[in-house]
Amino acid sequence: MTATRRDVLRAAAAERGLDAVLVTNLLNVRYLTGFTGSNGALLVRTDASDLFATDGRYTTQAATQVPDVELLVDRTTVPALAREAVRRGAGRIGYESHDLTVDGLHGLERVLADAAAGGAGAELVSVRRAVEAQRAIKDDGEIESLRRACAVADQALAELAAEGALRPGRTELQVGRELDARMLALGAEAPSFETIVATGANSAIPHHRPDATVLREGDFLKLDFGATVDGYHSDMTRTLVLGHAADWQREIYELVVASQAAGRAALAVGTDVVAVDSAARDVIVAAGHGEHFTHGLGHGVGLEIHEAPGIGQLGAGSLAAGMAVTVEPGVYLPGHGGVRIEDTLIVTDDAPELLTLTSKELLVL
Amino acid sequence: MTATRRDVLRAAAAERGLDAVLVTNLLNVRYLTGFTGSNGALLVRTDASDLFATDGRYTTQAATQVPDVELLVDRTTVPALAREAVRRGAGRIGYESHDLTVDGLHGLERVLADAAAGGAGAELVSVRRAVEAQRAIKDDGEIESLRRACAVADQALAELAAEGALRPGRTELQVGRELDARMLALGAEAPSFETIVATGANSAIPHHRPDATVLREGDFLKLDFGATVDGYHSDMTRTLVLGHAADWQREIYELVVASQAAGRAALAVGTDVVAVDSAARDVIVAAGHGEHFTHGLGHGVGLEIHEAPGIGQLGAGSLAAGMAVTVEPGVYLPGHGGVRIEDTLIVTDDAPELLTLTSKELLVL
Repeated sequence: MTATRRDVLRAAAAERGLDAVLVTNLLNVRYLTGFTGSNGALLVRTDASDLFATDGRYTTQAATQVPDVELLVDRTTVPALAREAVRRGAGRIGYESHDLTVDGLHGLERVLADAAAGGAGAELVSVRRAVEAQRAIKDDGEIESLRRACAVADQALAELAAEGALRPGRTELQVGRELDARMLALGAEAPSFETIVATGANSAIPHHRPDATVLREGDFLKLDFGATVDGYHSDMTRTLVLGHAADWQREIYELVVASQAAGRAALAVGTDVVAVDSAARDVIVAAGHGEHFTHGLGHGVGLEIHEAPGIGQLGAGSLAAGMAVTVEPGVYLPGHGGVRIEDTLIVTDDAPELLTLTSKELLVL
Repeated sequence: MTATRRDVLRAAAAERGLDAVLVTNLLNVRYLTGFTGSNGALLVRTDASDLFATDGRYTTQAATQVPDVELLVDRTTVPALAREAVRRGAGRIGYESHDLTVDGLHGLERVLADAAAGGAGAELVSVRRAVEAQRAIKDDGEIESLRRACAVADQALAELAAEGALRPGRTELQVGRELDARMLALGAEAPSFETIVATGANSAIPHHRPDATVLREGDFLKLDFGATVDGYHSDMTRTLVLGHAADWQREIYELVVASQAAGRAALAVGTDVVAVDSAARDVIVAAGHGEHFTHGLGHGVGLEIHEAPGIGQLGAGSLAAGMAVTVEPGVYLPGHGGVRIEDTLIVTDDAPELLTLTSKELLVL
């Protein structure tokens, strides 16, 4: 699987006239090799075999996780790979300018200056987000990991609801910690991000951090959370009502349901991401709540919780089969409460595959 | 607290002849402002008030967490702050070259070129790890957070041991997940890092990732883990024996205990970090196991699990009061088993304060 991914990058690099690409972003290294340690870099060469570098702590792990790439054990992974690239004849070396730091670039420039003094000229060329662009399209293994990550989140929420953990009197922090602990118990490596639990007026804050606020009867309870499995992140938001729902709550809830359904229906290969956002946004605007939907509709999800493609009015590009994206419209009434409903889905040649399977009927607990 | 920290950086910047410092590293921003969101940057000005930038998602959170710094809401935080810095007259602007990416620097250079075209000349100067150096000395609030983070880890291990969760027949993964879940239940925001559970021959691998290996009677069980509280990380390793300890196990265990005690005893203000490492290492070398202690003695710990100072033969500098460090010698016998014992401590003008209080007597469970 990772060999195929490296071949795709190799072809892209050859097309740009590069002899090699130095991959420094650790998630990109993981994607291309399977390596999960905290220090590693990869050299993909267009006309030759690749080279993976890590430090002595990871010699055993590298042998297990990256058995098919030549290993270079060196604490200074990135300049060490550049030195090897030049020694083995690379003249044009791509690097990730969105990831490499200024100090890191100076280190590479020193390596190249030394090589030039020795008669071997080479130059550095930014490949920008070439690997991230590749990562936007998930392969079968990645989709299976996402399915499992979504299933863990579904199951964790179902168990908490069934056990009565989401009831008046408890605090946002208690609920958040139990949700996290449940996901870990179900096999998650970690929560996908800092779990959002927002009740009452806090539910009107899109990115509220759970605090000691007590859940009260008649309040919204918004849960935005996910599980990480094999490094892949699920992302789901559900908004419940505690005790009984008032008319204004049912009204904005149904509005967000309709908007979210419209957004999901717009997920088709070739559709511009701005049009996807509009499909969901228009429903909310038509109901007079446009100003209360204050963020983009969704984002790609995978080894990062936010990755390409961005789905919003400022986005660019169109959907392709294999993209994993969220659809998450919201309506937030400051000081009162808010609703967001979010799924993780896979874009396919047919209808999108829904990975987060928790019901979107208004749940009154 | 954070105002005092900004004043320290302000003084250091003035000493270097800078008009402002642009802080881009998110942990440094958190340290200097209290902001915990995922997008934020800070401009510290030497002769004027500071400016904090984040995007619209965090307007509410910034008002709560950073009430004492002027707020700039702009999605492109870093160039936006640079633009403001120049507009308000800054000529020499420090930046973090170990954090800013190559693309990020180009963005700043464009801002400065625009300003120069408008008649306002300014230049960028690397301040390197100025904030990290400041962070190495913890203030009282930070030490209290570290105390709580260590207490959570102590308590989690005590509960697991008392409940019989560390027994033959269970797997490393099960034990690791329960330890993580227990820390969360006790109030940790997250584990400090991927918890290490290594039994049997796996305990000889310093950085073993927990897998399906089953705990067996007579085996070592090495647990290296920590809890994050208020963003501060605890770090502790204990090695137990299951059922009964063989002579060779007691022997290397007692050796590591003696080495670790020597390392702790060497933690005094003004001591060179190489000498601290040697104090512990010499004990192991003298017993003929020098080649089986394959890593440095310890590291600073705080908002990052590994931060300044590094304590090892390749380290530089000396200890100062308020540093939070680990002391973690190990003896690893490949194919057989290994022992590591690690504490988190605070360097003081007197004896170091021990924060991880779990006993270091050999525990046979």
